[in-house]
Amino acid sequence: MEYAKSIYTNAPGGGVKIDKLPVQRLPEHNVRLKVLLNGMCGTDRGIVSGGLSFAYNPQNSDKLIIGHESLCIIDEIYAESEEFKVGDLVVPVVRRPGDCVNCKIGRQDNCSDGKKHEAGITGMDGFMREYFYDSLDYIVKVPDKEMIDVAVLTEPLKNVVKGFEVFDIVSKRAIFANEYSTFEGKRCLVIGSGSEAFLYSMMAREHGFDVIMTNRHPIEDKKLEICERFGINFVDYSADASQITGPGNDLLIDTSGDPGTIFRFLKTLNYNGVLILFGTNGRAPPAQLNGNDIDFFIERNITVAGTVDAAKIHYIKALEYLRKWKYAYGNTLSQLITGTYRPEDLEIFTKKPAGEIKTVIKW
Amino acid sequence: MEYAKSIYTNAPGGGVKIDKLPVQRLPEHNVRLKVLLNGMCGTDRGIVSGGLSFAYNPQNSDKLIIGHESLCIIDEIYAESEEFKVGDLVVPVVRRPGDCVNCKIGRQDNCSDGKKHEAGITGMDGFMREYFYDSLDYIVKVPDKEMIDVAVLTEPLKNVVKGFEVFDIVSKRAIFANEYSTFEGKRCLVIGSGSEAFLYSMMAREHGFDVIMTNRHPIEDKKLEICERFGINFVDYSADASQITGPGNDLLIDTSGDPGTIFRFLKTLNYNGVLILFGTNGRAPPAQLNGNDIDFFIERNITVAGTVDAAKIHYIKALEYLRKWKYAYGNTLSQLITGTYRPEDLEIFTKKPAGEIKTVIKW
Amino acid sequence: MEYAKSIYTNAPGGGVKIDKLPVQRLPEHNVRLKVLLNGMCGTDRGIVSGGLSFAYNPQNSDKLIIGHESLCIIDEIYAESEEFKVGDLVVPVVRRPGDCVNCKIGRQDNCSDGKKHEAGITGMDGFMREYFYDSLDYIVKVPDKEMIDVAVLTEPLKNVVKGFEVFDIVSKRAIFANEYSTFEGKRCLVIGSGSEAFLYSMMAREHGFDVIMTNRHPIEDKKLEICERFGINFVDYSADASQITGPGNDLLIDTSGDPGTIFRFLKTLNYNGVLILFGTNGRAPPAQLNGNDIDFFIERNITVAGTVDAAKIHYIKALEYLRKWKYAYGNTLSQLITGTYRPEDLEIFTKKPAGEIKTVIKW
Amino acid sequence: MEYAKSIYTNAPGGGVKIDKLPVQRLPEHNVRLKVLLNGMCGTDRGIVSGGLSFAYNPQNSDKLIIGHESLCIIDEIYAESEEFKVGDLVVPVVRRPGDCVNCKIGRQDNCSDGKKHEAGITGMDGFMREYFYDSLDYIVKVPDKEMIDVAVLTEPLKNVVKGFEVFDIVSKRAIFANEYSTFEGKRCLVIGSGSEAFLYSMMAREHGFDVIMTNRHPIEDKKLEICERFGINFVDYSADASQITGPGNDLLIDTSGDPGTIFRFLKTLNYNGVLILFGTNGRAPPAQLNGNDIDFFIERNITVAGTVDAAKIHYIKALEYLRKWKYAYGNTLSQLITGTYRPEDLEIFTKKPAGEIKTVIKW
Repeated sequence: MEYAKSIYTNAPGGGVKIDKLPVQRLPEHNVRLKVLLNGMCGTDRGIVSGGLSFAYNPQNSDKLIIGHESLCIIDEIYAESEEFKVGDLVVPVVRRPGDCVNCKIGRQDNCSDGKKHEAGITGMDGFMREYFYDSLDYIVKVPDKEMIDVAVLTEPLKNVVKGFEVFDIVSKRAIFANEYSTFEGKRCLVIGSGSEAFLYSMMAREHGFDVIMTNRHPIEDKKLEICERFGINFVDYSADASQITGPGNDLLIDTSGDPGTIFRFLKTLNYNGVLILFGTNGRAPPAQLNGNDIDFFIERNITVAGTVDAAKIHYIKALEYLRKWKYAYGNTLSQLITGTYRPEDLEIFTKKPAGEIKTVIKW
Repeated sequence: MEYAKSIYTNAPGGGVKIDKLPVQRLPEHNVRLKVLLNGMCGTDRGIVSGGLSFAYNPQNSDKLIIGHESLCIIDEIYAESEEFKVGDLVVPVVRRPGDCVNCKIGRQDNCSDGKKHEAGITGMDGFMREYFYDSLDYIVKVPDKEMIDVAVLTEPLKNVVKGFEVFDIVSKRAIFANEYSTFEGKRCLVIGSGSEAFLYSMMAREHGFDVIMTNRHPIEDKKLEICERFGINFVDYSADASQITGPGNDLLIDTSGDPGTIFRFLKTLNYNGVLILFGTNGRAPPAQLNGNDIDFFIERNITVAGTVDAAKIHYIKALEYLRKWKYAYGNTLSQLITGTYRPEDLEIFTKKPAGEIKTVIKW
Repeated sequence: MEYAKSIYTNAPGGGVKIDKLPVQRLPEHNVRLKVLLNGMCGTDRGIVSGGLSFAYNPQNSDKLIIGHESLCIIDEIYAESEEFKVGDLVVPVVRRPGDCVNCKIGRQDNCSDGKKHEAGITGMDGFMREYFYDSLDYIVKVPDKEMIDVAVLTEPLKNVVKGFEVFDIVSKRAIFANEYSTFEGKRCLVIGSGSEAFLYSMMAREHGFDVIMTNRHPIEDKKLEICERFGINFVDYSADASQITGPGNDLLIDTSGDPGTIFRFLKTLNYNGVLILFGTNGRAPPAQLNGNDIDFFIERNITVAGTVDAAKIHYIKALEYLRKWKYAYGNTLSQLITGTYRPEDLEIFTKKPAGEIKTVIKW
Repeated sequence: MEYAKSIYTNAPGGGVKIDKLPVQRLPEHNVRLKVLLNGMCGTDRGIVSGGLSFAYNPQNSDKLIIGHESLCIIDEIYAESEEFKVGDLVVPVVRRPGDCVNCKIGRQDNCSDGKKHEAGITGMDGFMREYFYDSLDYIVKVPDKEMIDVAVLTEPLKNVVKGFEVFDIVSKRAIFANEYSTFEGKRCLVIGSGSEAFLYSMMAREHGFDVIMTNRHPIEDKKLEICERFGINFVDYSADASQITGPGNDLLIDTSGDPGTIFRFLKTLNYNGVLILFGTNGRAPPAQLNGNDIDFFIERNITVAGTVDAAKIHYIKALEYLRKWKYAYGNTLSQLITGTYRPEDLEIFTKKPAGEIKTVIKW
């Protein structure tokens, strides 16, 4: 049995440790991946805190190696491949399919029965370890080696790519664009100021929206600068909500998971508006909607779409967006990575570094 | 000036009277319609009670003739028409377009700026009167004269046709059908037991769903019989909610407008489930959602769609469904009309007759 | 081994015989179906004539039992079923899935690799026999026993239902409806006058098109009467093509498979027009298109869609259309069945009865 | 009256001259555009040769200023604008709307009645002149000044963006992607080797296709190098067609307009394949299809889509693709511009420069 340094928990109870743990190579595994970087996200911290009740260990194990955001390098290949070779930078796919109709067509992000698995979250060991084995079918190649400093953002960005695919589909129920077929004059409000809020804001800009990012507190100057370079307006709504509490949003994206915050901005949606629910916070306190709020959804033909995870195609598209943004915005893109830590720095699982957008672990 | 007996209010203040009021013929009016029947709906009662703040009188008027559900007969035509002739049974369209992109393509039901008008509701006189003038562009022909007893259901049913169009579009974000491409084994829960609940339930059956209709009280035997003939299961959830509080609904349709009731059933939605919000009740008390509820929407890729009104194409399709159902279900369809009243019976605006599904006024 | 009277060929060589042949019951078979009626279609005659090179016998067999259009009754069930019981009228599905992504989701009609099977055509025994075994997963229930005289049309009609689904999808590339959201004033030209031409014409009427059916020769008075009752205009274009050779068709549907005929009407397509190719005639002589024709497709944003077979969902919808039409058009629908023969009347495989719309075999 | 040096013809007769011609400023014109570059395309040469019968002069004029591909700079603005300012690089939109439903929503590229106008082609003066007046509603801003060397490709690329939008829509009729949701292993064959063939090939790469470009003759080494840098395989099918005459293409794109060439490759389409017709050549000789070819389209559920022009949204997206490609491919993108000429070099209208991909005129 091989062993590799691994960061793990005991799901769903929580906790976090680092140790040498066994590395399994299953029959379908035909590639060995050395981990270069892991991204840290709210889900990782949620698991460690014991706050994610749906997390669970692999079968017959009392440990779950955590981590689903990663950038890896191919160490060895045990199969013929025209696409991959040793030394390629790759990003492994988080969700692995079950047997439902959506899983069967590579859309385990839309799994119909919940029987899929998620690396580092539900029943499958994750990517926060020195190396692991996987199948070439579930890795995606980074198209350009110069992207080594930003490609760890692929996993969070792929969620955003899917989120906009969902928006594209559900918004087809009416004409969403203006009379010139464009999104000029359309506004997107993004709630939150973490990494997903930044990535959603950037994608909204890419789609032609005017974009406002908002949170209930001011953000650091560094974050403000990044917003400015991406053409995003930030509004601290605790200080001045006047810009955003009137009508005027065609697309509302929540990354907070907090009902009170979401509901606060509901009535800013225009006719045919869309609300994308992405952020989760299982411990968020309740908030109220009344009959008038329901009425508002109806009279305005509003659509609300919860969206989770993404498919392999979205990883590929995410990498293409990162490639473009890396060039178009110079080094601003890589500034989304606000801190790089060693695997042993386990305190980052329990204490969010100040000014964090994306914290990464370097192996 | 011509005068016709008309049922009117003073919006949004409310009240209801019947009197001879002037009948306007605008330049674009090329048909005179004699009203045979009006359907009564919650909106009419809401206007009369003063509870619909968005209702308003036509410009420069202190009266609003109410009524938007109707069956009419063409009395005179003032234009050449291959499609219409005197004596045709027709249903006039409620919403009239403004200038937005959706209105320009005949989709004023999806009006982007709220500048459309609605007969009997917002700034345009309605159909509860002996006769009125209209344009041939905004009337829809009943395809079969034998439908005279059910065609007054066209207007409420057209909302349902649109509701299912919205469902069809938004559910395309994942594969909704089973592995045999059908809806066998998919379940639809319809909240409410009024006319729209019946029509939504029937359409859900038509789409292949197993259908449960539910309300917080038992329903009359007559209603139960109708349910049985349409293959709808009714559950009084105050007595026994066990059948419907577990998971198992793929489509959830609300006709109550009550947040507390809607939220009660939210967590019965399956993965990729869809919630259609149709019923409005501006005075319904608030209810709560918490972080876990938001999480549920996200983890399950759930879509919520408010939907209001419908386009001319949906009136045409509604008439075709009524035609089919009239034959397929014998006289059960016409039993949805539970009471026929004279125009002078104004008490039906303030007191719902017992066992009401659809109350109509006969001129 | 059981034996049942069966009509068979030796594919792709051809010929037709009737004899007692063995009836296989495979492990997945949980229902026995007694055949009531078979419909005869061009494919059956093509196989018998040896003209369909793609037809082939089941593995290790020198016989192919033919027939894919049928109406059956459940004789015995060997499994628990809430949906089916002995005595139910059912229609078995023709195509059985392979392993591709489309097959996996019940859309073997869109099989990606050609590895599906078709009863009575490609590698799987068909339905022209006294009885056979099948799986409940591949049969569809006739919703109303009174449809016994028309339900044999389900199989050909299901192709039409899919054809219109394809039309609906491809026509979304532009706005196809008029400015009132309807198809009023839109015209559909259907080429051919056989059963599929009738069924496509009826479906086009159902969708709101003005419909012209055309062929190069006059049709029998009986067929003209049926056209009239369904609101279809028939034009014998050899006598007078003036009505249909100018522009004016928004949808063009071919059931002839003859390039010369199809190309003759190509330039009658309006902007954003759609051509559905459905009819096949492998022996049809070539016809020409030139640069101007290609240009016409491009300048007008025209779409051409070949469409074959259909999925289980389309059988279900076909049955619902038949149900409606049976009632709405009285006995006209059953008049599409122009001749009923005994299984032994093998001459109908080689000689088309005069005035044929649909010929059926009664067991 | 102002005058500007202009290149013009007398449509549809043809010919080409350069002279000072009057510059009209219409009431809706609120911007003056100085032309920097014009791209030359087959349509321009077709008009000059008298080969495009559909071209026509502006009303009451015997001259048509030609040119529809351009890069301009804003010279003066006569309105308030948050979006535009003097000095901005912009690309004007070619088609201007008529009154149909598609034109009303900014989709004059899908004009339903042919009553739109096209600058430099049908009834509206074009962009091959020193300067002209236009409306801010019909210009699109170049997002990055460094794109000055490639932005003249926006107009031809916008056609490609629409072509792929059409592909996306029509291919939804079945599952087109592989079982991992991606296009890995899907192949696109592009017929032609001119500028549109290159742009379509690049976009097919961007969508994840393996791409083969083919023509009936070898191409210059310079072109081969560009192909290689973009990951496009070129095949001279006159020398060796073995790679491309078997099955294997999922998407076939024609830029030749020649029926004989298109039909040669038809039968290489896979199941659910799509053929995009883009190239026009009104003088191309006829070629034949027979019954078997029609059968092939049907049995394989193949879709053919003619596509012309594009909407404002596609110009915006084209600019974003150019931005990405400029960075990702270094100076290879600008090498698509193979020759820069003076306005007086009128011989380029009648004689294609050797090795031409895109020829431009610099003012």
